[in-house]
Amino acid sequence: MILENIKSSADVKALTAAQTQALCGELRQAIIENVSKTGGHLASGLGAVELTVAIHRVYDTASDRVIFDVGHQCYAHKMLTGRLDRFGTLRQFGGLSGFPTPFESGDDPCVCGHASVSVSNALGMARARTLRGADCDICAVIGDGALTGGVAYEGLSDCGQSGESIVVILNDNCMSISSNVGGMAKLLSLIRARPSYLRFKRFYRRVIGRVKPLYAVTHSVKEWIKHIVIPDNMFEQMGFYYLGPVDGHNERLLEHVLRDAKALKMPVLLHVVTTKGKGYAPAERDPELYHGVGPFDVQKGIEQAAPKRDFSAAFGEAMCAAAERDGAVAAITAAMESGTGLTAFAEKYPERFFDVGIEEEHAVSMCAGMALNGLKPVFAVYSSFLQRGLDMLIHDVGLARAHVVFGVDRAGLVGADGMTHQGAFDVGYLRLVPGMTLLSPSNYVELRSMLGAALDADGPVALRYPRGSEGAFTDDTSAAPSALLRAGVDAVIISYGIMINEALAAAEMLEQKGIRAAVLKLNRLTEPDFRLDSELAAIPAAVVAEDCAAAGCVGQSLAAALAERGAAMRLKMLNLGSGVVQHGSVDALRRACGIDAQSIAAAVASLAGGAA
Amino acid sequence: MILENIKSSADVKALTAAQTQALCGELRQAIIENVSKTGGHLASGLGAVELTVAIHRVYDTASDRVIFDVGHQCYAHKMLTGRLDRFGTLRQFGGLSGFPTPFESGDDPCVCGHASVSVSNALGMARARTLRGADCDICAVIGDGALTGGVAYEGLSDCGQSGESIVVILNDNCMSISSNVGGMAKLLSLIRARPSYLRFKRFYRRVIGRVKPLYAVTHSVKEWIKHIVIPDNMFEQMGFYYLGPVDGHNERLLEHVLRDAKALKMPVLLHVVTTKGKGYAPAERDPELYHGVGPFDVQKGIEQAAPKRDFSAAFGEAMCAAAERDGAVAAITAAMESGTGLTAFAEKYPERFFDVGIEEEHAVSMCAGMALNGLKPVFAVYSSFLQRGLDMLIHDVGLARAHVVFGVDRAGLVGADGMTHQGAFDVGYLRLVPGMTLLSPSNYVELRSMLGAALDADGPVALRYPRGSEGAFTDDTSAAPSALLRAGVDAVIISYGIMINEALAAAEMLEQKGIRAAVLKLNRLTEPDFRLDSELAAIPAAVVAEDCAAAGCVGQSLAAALAERGAAMRLKMLNLGSGVVQHGSVDALRRACGIDAQSIAAAVASLAGGAA
Repeated sequence: MILENIKSSADVKALTAAQTQALCGELRQAIIENVSKTGGHLASGLGAVELTVAIHRVYDTASDRVIFDVGHQCYAHKMLTGRLDRFGTLRQFGGLSGFPTPFESGDDPCVCGHASVSVSNALGMARARTLRGADCDICAVIGDGALTGGVAYEGLSDCGQSGESIVVILNDNCMSISSNVGGMAKLLSLIRARPSYLRFKRFYRRVIGRVKPLYAVTHSVKEWIKHIVIPDNMFEQMGFYYLGPVDGHNERLLEHVLRDAKALKMPVLLHVVTTKGKGYAPAERDPELYHGVGPFDVQKGIEQAAPKRDFSAAFGEAMCAAAERDGAVAAITAAMESGTGLTAFAEKYPERFFDVGIEEEHAVSMCAGMALNGLKPVFAVYSSFLQRGLDMLIHDVGLARAHVVFGVDRAGLVGADGMTHQGAFDVGYLRLVPGMTLLSPSNYVELRSMLGAALDADGPVALRYPRGSEGAFTDDTSAAPSALLRAGVDAVIISYGIMINEALAAAEMLEQKGIRAAVLKLNRLTEPDFRLDSELAAIPAAVVAEDCAAAGCVGQSLAAALAERGAAMRLKMLNLGSGVVQHGSVDALRRACGIDAQSIAAAVASLAGGAA
Repeated sequence: MILENIKSSADVKALTAAQTQALCGELRQAIIENVSKTGGHLASGLGAVELTVAIHRVYDTASDRVIFDVGHQCYAHKMLTGRLDRFGTLRQFGGLSGFPTPFESGDDPCVCGHASVSVSNALGMARARTLRGADCDICAVIGDGALTGGVAYEGLSDCGQSGESIVVILNDNCMSISSNVGGMAKLLSLIRARPSYLRFKRFYRRVIGRVKPLYAVTHSVKEWIKHIVIPDNMFEQMGFYYLGPVDGHNERLLEHVLRDAKALKMPVLLHVVTTKGKGYAPAERDPELYHGVGPFDVQKGIEQAAPKRDFSAAFGEAMCAAAERDGAVAAITAAMESGTGLTAFAEKYPERFFDVGIEEEHAVSMCAGMALNGLKPVFAVYSSFLQRGLDMLIHDVGLARAHVVFGVDRAGLVGADGMTHQGAFDVGYLRLVPGMTLLSPSNYVELRSMLGAALDADGPVALRYPRGSEGAFTDDTSAAPSALLRAGVDAVIISYGIMINEALAAAEMLEQKGIRAAVLKLNRLTEPDFRLDSELAAIPAAVVAEDCAAAGCVGQSLAAALAERGAAMRLKMLNLGSGVVQHGSVDALRRACGIDAQSIAAAVASLAGGAA
């Protein structure tokens, strides 16, 4: 058991070649065993085992800065840096994060959870290093999927001409989460097909162990001259010294090339080809299925259960129905075909389905173009990823009054993925978009009704709905902008979306205590109809319960309406505060944030008591 | 006078070759004459005259869709499409917009004011066209500067493999607003240096007028095969048929090549080389000075007046002073070195100055990396352009608690540039960022003090300040989060930034009428200190006057604070509403939006009257 004794890069460096080899096997085994119990990201991590070990043999992640883009592949890195014994708590409340975070370890230089920003972060660290005259090496590891994001291109473009000593490792597993699309995929496949790949590999095998560093330097200089004179791929044209492609499962080879790359002291792009899911046959066969997994039986693999019934699936069904009715309906995703429930749509209406890769900005602008030329585009996207499209939401969609529909999935608390993935900000940023109508279905039937209404509307419309399943409340109240689900005189609980179940449960609890709380469900979050002139006119207190950040929340709109009319209603807002919410089950997080039924009931009781 | 009789693409098509030539001269003259009187974007428009005429000879902009990226170069297009007689009103309140907008003409297919999204919009329109079986051609015109933006790369990447009939014209004038930087500039200069440029030009000259379309097709097919087999630049690797580079001031040549490009019915990238400022010697000599201009004397050119004294200049001076004190201070800009006042900094501290090109996303992420590795990066950026960085603000900066300082220039009303450039949303989106401290200096001395405080603080800090000069209020009140500038008992006017001058003027007006209004100036807009427990405790009414959109405005925070404490203060919020504000002078816009001193006074009088 080598792994158990490893706590740092230094420990990895002290291993013999044979031990290093064995360590890779142990890591792979540990990842499979742990993730099969806790769930998590599996296939990416398995593909990056040798790469991670090679990195620790060449860099010291405590003093050097190594950034794993997106962070799906960070488990081996975490196991090598003192976190092995806590792996049973992965992604659980209070446990290890599923992503790199500096608040967990000094070996994680920054927060990684969104794609494509590693090169930019790394370049910033490199420039800081150089200006401070510090002595640390910088390395970014980015997948070919993340490379499709525009900010990766921006980062590479600046990095290539920076002259900084920095190594960008392109971890090319020939796919992002869905299979890769677009120009970059084409470009990489061209590079991989070059005969130099094989020659390069053979050359290194021959050289390793026989020649001395001197040779490597000579070789490097020769290659360097060759490349400067005839740049033959995009990376070289951008100013990188390009090395590769290299077999990403040959640790020894990787280690040698990486050492060379680091020694070059310039912007280097090291192109490594890996197999997603490597070493676990079921994951190699279906890496998308094994990208993010729940607990499963290692021997049997993931059992193909009945298709999940959740908001994403309901959205996909509603989209198919809409497409059948209306030939102008098109679906757009940014590398999340299955995650957003669009697999059936993609099969049934391939000519109206567009997966643009991890390119949320482009997706929003392209949808604007579609809408302005007669289509009804629906962009299905996770709440936290649509953050990337704010400028296009305002400029291309809002100002142009383009009729684009947004299916904002994973809105509110997402659970185990934690702070980078919580859909905490969409209420705030979508309500900023000029002309936006923001709708909030509470269940599947409302999702379907509201999607229909959105497609028949004008201007931009967004539907926000959560990860997971509907709750006890399954009525369709979507015909009106708000619905009084329960009458009451002591206070009113105002909520929307999946949170309405907490609100109703709270009202039940309060009734036990003799407090009669009304429940108002909001269906439209822009220009919300609070019914201040009708049902709520005589109610002295309100609690607004929301699964979003405080800034820009709906409760503030209520407060503004109250203050502008001089109404005397007392108000308490329950929400996600700053929007930074760690990982854990959604139930645990609701309790921790004080937006569960119990907390709502307590807030109402306190207000109603104060009013009485 | 040919130009006077042109109202549409059809009119341009009807011209003889000689008339077309003459039209170019007239257009150039008209642009110089008009812009010298109204001010506006000059150099870009002059560079695109022949290109615009060629476009109208080949396309019909009323039925086809031609998108000018950013839109700086759209004046010739506007003059050719029925808007010549209104050019005297350019960028003035109620007059012609300086940018393309579909609300002005059917010849402008979408809103253009931000860089790099034209390809995405165009691809959306092309896909809509194809799905609807419609018959219209699509063309996007994008400059080499805009091409550095990541979303342009995303759009090209998707477009190249789309198979859509679409022509992307790369208008390569070898610079963006500042001189171009990064990998794309390097790439384009490599392409321009190829001998094929000259050969291509000579070939077309030889062919024009002699051979028939048939030849062009044969040639195209041959070229097509050649390019498919040996893709030799990034565009070809992405799947485009690449044509060029072509001399962008040879209208006849351009027209022929563009016709060929359109006929190919596939994704084509036509690389056109132009000279910014072409035809007006002073602008050719100094295209950056003549990028955006005020009125000037055509004969004398722009007189180098004394350097402007405005917020940008004050920021630049404060940055130089900060850099002198502290070796860790670095300045970052996204192609706005002079616009953000950083020219002197760039000269004095070149090793600590980073112009990353039009790459706001990368800039934010890179700053995060710098901050996490010991520097104090300050990103100077316009409010409406920082919209593009929201995800990085949240993920890379906010969640990581990175100490990045943002100099948010052009916050609030910007005037003549109009709706795409108004800094209306920063208060809303910056207050969403976890851990953000948002400061609002009202004058130069406060800008300097607050920058100093920001550099000494922890976590992300943003300073928002307007375009233009300070007003009558020049005191430094920055030591406290808010300052009571004037006592009063009937009502309080709460404001911040440049708007404090309107608030003070309103209080003066009210005093004439016997209404004693207090004035509270906020310095910190996150967790604002409204002094509800001290000076404001006994005041019955408040007017909050802000130059930002209603969603997420500071007035809502006040409303929330009032409602949560059950305070009886009556409230009226004056702000930019939806955030869509047209062009015109800042004074005119303040009046139109009801946030000028007069409107504030009227609101106070109405509230105070109601309370009395």
